[in-house]
Amino acid sequence: MIKAVIFDLDNTLVDFMKFKRQSVEAAVDAMIDAGLKIDKKKAEEIIYEIYEEKGIEYQRIFDEFLEKVLGEIDYKILSAGIVAYRRVKEATLSIYPHVRQTLTELLKMNMKLGVVSDAPRLQAWTRIAQAGLLHYFDVVVTFDDTRVLKPAAEPFMFALNKLGLEPKEAIMVGDWAERDIVGAKQIGMITVFARYGDVFGTQNSGADYEINDIYELVDIVKNLNKKGG
Amino acid sequence: MIKAVIFDLDNTLVDFMKFKRQSVEAAVDAMIDAGLKIDKKKAEEIIYEIYEEKGIEYQRIFDEFLEKVLGEIDYKILSAGIVAYRRVKEATLSIYPHVRQTLTELLKMNMKLGVVSDAPRLQAWTRIAQAGLLHYFDVVVTFDDTRVLKPAAEPFMFALNKLGLEPKEAIMVGDWAERDIVGAKQIGMITVFARYGDVFGTQNSGADYEINDIYELVDIVKNLNKKGG
Repeated sequence: MIKAVIFDLDNTLVDFMKFKRQSVEAAVDAMIDAGLKIDKKKAEEIIYEIYEEKGIEYQRIFDEFLEKVLGEIDYKILSAGIVAYRRVKEATLSIYPHVRQTLTELLKMNMKLGVVSDAPRLQAWTRIAQAGLLHYFDVVVTFDDTRVLKPAAEPFMFALNKLGLEPKEAIMVGDWAERDIVGAKQIGMITVFARYGDVFGTQNSGADYEINDIYELVDIVKNLNKKGG
Repeated sequence: MIKAVIFDLDNTLVDFMKFKRQSVEAAVDAMIDAGLKIDKKKAEEIIYEIYEEKGIEYQRIFDEFLEKVLGEIDYKILSAGIVAYRRVKEATLSIYPHVRQTLTELLKMNMKLGVVSDAPRLQAWTRIAQAGLLHYFDVVVTFDDTRVLKPAAEPFMFALNKLGLEPKEAIMVGDWAERDIVGAKQIGMITVFARYGDVFGTQNSGADYEINDIYELVDIVKNLNKKGG
């Protein structure tokens, strides 16, 4: 009997890479408009190199970018970039199609809902809040709660313990096969690969199910609970 | 001969207190909506007490507020507050009527334009950028540039030196008599009190001029330069 559905956050519920691309592009445009002399493509390349090195959540991204290309921080250019980034971020952080509909439907089926994310606590929570999903979840586990990344068992077990459930009573949905699927599977959860969020061109997800639209979860849960009784 | 007009930023160009009040109110509403049990007025009082103690730019305001009222940080509540605060901030940070018109007119009169603010560097710059005023100013002096607050001479002199001007060649416009007017006057600048931004109920500003609308500056400069030749 399935009693809970646990989701990865970024690229599973929230279209994180789309928002990141659009925000970075807006920031680069604004910095060039504020006087930065640089080729746009080159600027984006350097920014993604810094993200690559420091992590995609790195907060001093534009400071470091300017130090790299100018040798110092020009605050006129920096502030133009930050403000443009934030504006687009506020406007575009978007959930995938049918997310709200799916979560609502799962609630009506008495499912508990959770998030298990490798993102830092504050960033994960604010993205959930910004996406307007704050009220759906019974448990939200972020990197800071266990200090271990998926596929380790800890974050998944942390969520299950909070819900008082066994692994086999819960579904894990995620876009990252090596973290979400491998981790959930090895402790005995049912796994669903969110192919719509896959940015790696994953061939074999190894998941029990694959979905191209999050709403497919509703039928998966229905069928599992019909079978399982 | 007047060659430059230097502005204070908050409550002179940007309606800072309005944005702060509206953002805090939105944050409190959102935190209550996310499950915080507290009287709204009481919550706002506590928040302003923390601002009073830590400064109006304090970034951990909601963390500390929650620690105070809950004994811990509930991230569901915190993230709801932060997201609501940011949303209103992005939407409402507004310049006073006729600011853009006035700055444009002063530029056409060949005036150099500057900002001298006691705000921290990044906050001052991002507010200027957010208000869409980034391109107007020849010099922006923030707290971090001199590490001394107005009414000390340093921040004013820093701006004048950058512009290569004598104090008597520049007008200082500000809403805070004891800082903006006292400071500028004692080094020999012409002073203009922005009465429309006064939050203290100032009786005697001590300024050479007082204005209720920023556009009055245009006539003040015209008249001074007619007289002065």
